[in-house]
This record gives sequence, C-alpha cells and structure tokens, in this order.
Amino acid sequence: MSKLDEVYAKLQVKNGAKLALVVLDGLGDIATAATGNMTPLEAAKTPNLDALVRSGCAQGRMIPVAPGITPGSGPGHLALFGYDPIEWEVGRGVIETLGLGIELKNGDVAARANFCTLDAAGLVTDRRAGRIATEVCERLCALLSAKIKKIGDTQVLIYPGKEHRFVVVFRGKGLEGPLTDTDPNREGLAIATAQPTDPKNAGQKKVAKLIADFYAVALPLLAKEKPANGFLMRGVAHQPDIPTFAQRYGLKAAALAVYPMYKGLSQLVGMVKIEGIETIAQQFERYVKEYDNYDYFFIHYKYTDKAGEDGNFAAKVKAIEDFDAALPILLARKPAVLAITGDHSTPCAMKSHSWHPQPVLIHSASSGNDKLDRFTETGANGGGLGIFEAKYLIRLMQAQAGMFDKFGA
Amino acid sequence: MSKLDEVYAKLQVKNGAKLALVVLDGLGDIATAATGNMTPLEAAKTPNLDALVRSGCAQGRMIPVAPGITPGSGPGHLALFGYDPIEWEVGRGVIETLGLGIELKNGDVAARANFCTLDAAGLVTDRRAGRIATEVCERLCALLSAKIKKIGDTQVLIYPGKEHRFVVVFRGKGLEGPLTDTDPNREGLAIATAQPTDPKNAGQKKVAKLIADFYAVALPLLAKEKPANGFLMRGVAHQPDIPTFAQRYGLKAAALAVYPMYKGLSQLVGMVKIEGIETIAQQFERYVKEYDNYDYFFIHYKYTDKAGEDGNFAAKVKAIEDFDAALPILLARKPAVLAITGDHSTPCAMKSHSWHPQPVLIHSASSGNDKLDRFTETGANGGGLGIFEAKYLIRLMQAQAGMFDKFGA
Repeated sequence: MSKLDEVYAKLQVKNGAKLALVVLDGLGDIATAATGNMTPLEAAKTPNLDALVRSGCAQGRMIPVAPGITPGSGPGHLALFGYDPIEWEVGRGVIETLGLGIELKNGDVAARANFCTLDAAGLVTDRRAGRIATEVCERLCALLSAKIKKIGDTQVLIYPGKEHRFVVVFRGKGLEGPLTDTDPNREGLAIATAQPTDPKNAGQKKVAKLIADFYAVALPLLAKEKPANGFLMRGVAHQPDIPTFAQRYGLKAAALAVYPMYKGLSQLVGMVKIEGIETIAQQFERYVKEYDNYDYFFIHYKYTDKAGEDGNFAAKVKAIEDFDAALPILLARKPAVLAITGDHSTPCAMKSHSWHPQPVLIHSASSGNDKLDRFTETGANGGGLGIFEAKYLIRLMQAQAGMFDKFGA
Repeated sequence: MSKLDEVYAKLQVKNGAKLALVVLDGLGDIATAATGNMTPLEAAKTPNLDALVRSGCAQGRMIPVAPGITPGSGPGHLALFGYDPIEWEVGRGVIETLGLGIELKNGDVAARANFCTLDAAGLVTDRRAGRIATEVCERLCALLSAKIKKIGDTQVLIYPGKEHRFVVVFRGKGLEGPLTDTDPNREGLAIATAQPTDPKNAGQKKVAKLIADFYAVALPLLAKEKPANGFLMRGVAHQPDIPTFAQRYGLKAAALAVYPMYKGLSQLVGMVKIEGIETIAQQFERYVKEYDNYDYFFIHYKYTDKAGEDGNFAAKVKAIEDFDAALPILLARKPAVLAITGDHSTPCAMKSHSWHPQPVLIHSASSGNDKLDRFTETGANGGGLGIFEAKYLIRLMQAQAGMFDKFGA
C-alpha cells in the first residue's frame, strides 16, 4: 500500500451514505470535421442529464491509466474502482476467463487457449484449427475435462469459449503467473514451452511444470481429432490478490452489469453480482430496489463502447439518449454521491479504445456547481475537477459523501 | 526505469509515423497591465497558427519540471524529450560544455572554469580576473592545453569560452561527478578543494584526485600571468549515461537547431545534428527535405526566449510572427503528429526563465478539436490536454501516432 493509500485508509469513516457509479463504457470521444466538429455527447439530446448538470455538478476529465496509454476494460475498470492499474495488473488469461462468466478465486492461474492443428512432426500448421465450430470446441473441452481433473495437488478446470477458443484454470496452492506463451505466434513451428517470466519465482516454476504435464496428458487425448489435434496457451496469469471493496473502503458494493466481463471485473474486487437485469432502465430500477442493501453501486452500460468500436456515431448518440431517457429512474432515489463517466474513450473516428481522458461528472450536496449547461468533453475541460487520474475518482466520491476525516489539525 | 516507463516500453510499436516537435524557446508568458493584459502569443498576428488551431488541435499547458521550478535549458529540453529532469540531472559543467558546441562522450566529466586573480598568499582577489578579454582566455587555454594533455590514464581537454570563462573535460575510465566547487564564492579565501558529493563514490574520488593533480600542474604554468594567474572550477559533473531516442522510443531522431546548446542537448539523447541551417524558414525547409530520413524531428527556435530575457515584448511578438510566417513550409508536409510548445516560459515582465507552465498544442488525426480559435496561454488553460508534466509530451505524441498497443485486455 502506498503512503497516500495509508493516509486515505486512516482517514476513512463509515457513515452509511450511498455512492453510485454509472459507467457508460467508452463514453469519451473526439470532435472531428466528419461529425460537424461534435462528439456524441455534444450531439445527443440529453434533457435529463442537462437538468442534472444545471442543478449542480462538478465536471472534469480522467486519465484512465497514464498519459497516452489506451486501457483495455480491465485496467479501465480497476482504475474506476480506485486500484492503480499499473500496480494491480490483471493478466489476459484472467480477463478472458472472467469474460466467459467464470468465477476465479484469488491465486488461480488462468490461461486463454486455442485449439490448433499439428502435423505429423508436431509443427503447428493452423494456429486456429480452421476456426472450428463452437460445438466442436465444447465437445473437445468436455473430452479433456472428463480425463483431466487434477495434476498432482492442483485442480484443472477447462471451459469452452467461441469457435477454437477455450480457457484453462489451475486452482491449487502456491501458483503464480505470468508465464510466456506456448503459442509460437506463427505456423511451421513447434508448440513452445511455457516459461516463468521471473526464473526465480517458485510459483511460476510450479505452473511451468503443470503446463508441461498438462500437455503430456492432453495431447494424446486429441491425437486422433481433425483438424483440432493440438492447442496453444497464451496470457498465462494469476488472479491477483486484490483487497476487496469492503477491505479497502469499508463499503458493501453491488455490481449491476449485464456483460460477463464487467461482472467478472467487479467480482475481482469483491462486489456482489446482481443478476436478472438486461436494460439500463432495469438496471436503474434494480438500483432503487437494492438501495438499502448496499453502500456502493457499480452500474455498467455497454452500448456506448459498442457503437464507438463500430465507428457508428449515430448509434453512440442513440446509446447516450437511451441512457438519458432512463436516468430519471435512478434520480428518483438519488444516492449521496452520483458519478457518471466512462472507463475510457472509444472515439468513433478511431473505432477503438483510446487514451483520451474521459469526461466525468459528480453530483452531490458538496459537488458545487461548475455552471456548465451540459455534460460534454469540451465543457468538462474547464470543470472544477480538472484532469486527473481515474484512480482518484473513488476518493472524490468518498470525500463528497463525507467519508474522510480531516487530515491533521 | 520506473514501472510506468517499463509499461510504455512494453506497449511501444514501430509504425514509421513521423513526429515533429517545434520548440519556441521560452514561449510561455504572463499578461500584465503594462502590455494591455496580453501575452506575446495573444498580441501576435498568427494567421497560419490560427488556421491550424481551427483545423483541429488539442491544447494544454505543461509544467516543465515540477510546480514552481524554473528550469534551465537542460532540464527544460530533457523533459520535452521525455526524460524526467529530476531523474536525469545534467550538471552545469556538462551544459556549459555542450553550449560551447563541444561533443561529450558518456562518462566524460566536465567542469566550467573561470580564470581568477590570486595574491601572493594564494588568496582569491578577483574571482573573474577583471573579466579578461576573450583573446587572453584563448591564449591561456592554449598554453594549458599544450602542456597538459593527460593526467595518469585520463585525457584532459581545455576549451576557451567568452571572457574569463573556459571548460575542462576529463575523459577516461571510471570517472564520475558531481563534485563540490573549487570556487570559494567570495574574494579573500583560498581556492577550495573539489570534493566528492558522495564520499563513498570511487569515480568521484578519482576525479577529486585528478582535479588536485590538475591544479598542481596548471597553477605553476599561470604563475607569471597578470591578472589571470589562477582559476576556479564549478559544476563538476559527468555526462550521464542516458538511453538514446533510438533505445528508449525506437525512433530515429534529427535535431534542427541553430544554437550550440540545443545541438548539444539533442546529442545527449542521440539525435542526429543537422547542420547548415540558420533561419526558421530554412529549418522548416530542411525538415521537409529530411522527412523520409528520420522518425522524429526536433526543431528549435531561439528568438522568443532571447526577447523574453531582454524584456522586449515587441521583439517577442515579432519572433512569434516570424515563426508563423514560416509555418506553412512545415505544414506543406505535415508529420503524423505535430507539437508546438516552449521548453519553459520566459515572461518579458520577468526578463528570465520562469516556472509558469508553457502552452502546448498537438495536431494529429486523433488530436480531436478543443474548438479554440487561437493558440494562447489563456485558451490552452481550457484545452483537452489539461495541465501536465512536460515529460509526458512525447508519450502523447507517440499515442497520437498509434505507437502504443492497448494496455491489458
């Protein structure tokens, strides 16, 4: 824990106030001539958000990780949850597993895997086994699962994904990642050996041996399959031992997310997964219903990012307007502190995540009023929160909820 | 290397995109009543810069080193080049030597020196020897150079500067700085002994002995000179072993600078020195000509700083207008990412460098558009880049050039 985190922890008090974070995934955007020099937030009609802004909000922009760094969903959300994503790195295997909706335990090591095709000499001839059907992948995973349940004292869990993709989870004592890939990254080469990234790390060495042993048992089981007679493993990583929201902030947190990835990310930090919700209106209704049961609500909305990734400006505008239309449901039972932001920007013009600081808005009794008319990137540039690292958002929310004692006399 | 720098290094990809950094030295300024509450950037007529801004730019302000710290040219430029000037300290002896246009090698130890006057008891009676003429300084340096070429296994290089100033370079194995000055800082005292700043540092101890030996040989050679019969050494420092642009960023970099100091600073980080240019128009023309040969161009313009140091507001306005008039030459062959800024502020009202964050502008396909009309200090305050440390500028340029992979999944 950094010295600053120690100070925050020492000043922290419980007061039962409610915090809500609404994440419009990939919300931030850039103005380009092609879209009349407007961003989707600027182009969208958002009467409810506008009214909220005028009633008194602080705005700013957040650097998701560090200047110029484009985050994946993992680092983007960890930062929103107040965990420095440079300090708490979550490997690809873990993210992929969470994305399949699979729960991981602290200390689990997870790897993403592909079925591939090997020739008689054991060289990779197709790294994706011709993108076999998902049903074939499910059958092969079942085949492996049936025969391989344990290696030594370590449990082995195998879960199918889409097409040729699956994940392998090792659950046991003293396991650690990351390891190098067994994927040679091009055809014509043999399957590589997974190696510890830190040769002195005993946990990584144990996993390296596990993977070698896993190959020794699994490859013969696939030998007669066509075209998927082999597999490659990538992003071998362990679930980091992250302190939970309860431990770190003294907050009982609930996640109102629809997509598995975000449910998984929220579970990484110990949030309770709320199921049975689909639309943003349902998410807000459920928030109102659960209001008394939790201290902190993470409400995740995917469609802004989807539209950005597709480069579909009109769809991103529409996603924002749909969110705005549902917003009164949440506002009917306002939390003490409400934050609305993204986990990063996904500019339509770039069709991808980006490093551009995402706009953020905080509304509370002590948020003050930036006297802006709307919630937009350009407006937020001049807001009272300034441009700051996303990992501090929760600190500002805690502060506005009166959850920090004074520092020093 | 910091953990963050390691992350940047890991995410870095080569894509052949061109980056150009135009440094208007000491560009930043402050508005005062004496100049109609305008800064030179605000007062200048800059039609070409204005058009660039309106076509889509992100603006912000950069803290050269840390809040309140006024940088010299060395730290100011190191930061622009992405090297934390607190971490990579370049001693005065090194800067002074570079300023004379002398090339240094990694590991060289350089000191700035003054000829001084000593009385019969060896006490300093004039720390500057009455500011002897430059020709006298040159003669004395030649005298010392002719007799002192080596001390033990270390090469000794002596270069005259203006008036009483010269520099001494020790080139050899196992040398390190910094050491304390031999300048007693006031008249009536003896020449001090240069001492290691870290008494356990073997390299510094070797240099301390070298300096003592150098005095032992050099003072007798000057004994009959008047008034310059002694000398004082200050800022004894070694050229730090800085990773080059190629090593750190994978970029082949060229420096289009006119003044020796800036050529020297760019060489510190391994830039190729482009010679035979004088005016800003020639610098831009040469940039166009060299476009295919380099990945990164550092273009340095001195006259804004000169005017600021002189407290000459009109001259600073004129320097900006001259730059603006030449700008279309560069814009005829736009780089993927263009940044225009200063290495620090040099407010006319202060006649010196200052700590005020300098304005910065970035133009690229992904810069977005802050919807500002002009490039000014006040405008930049509300720009999308916010106020950030100058050492991150290159990271933003790399990001806008698509030179970083996504961080995490």
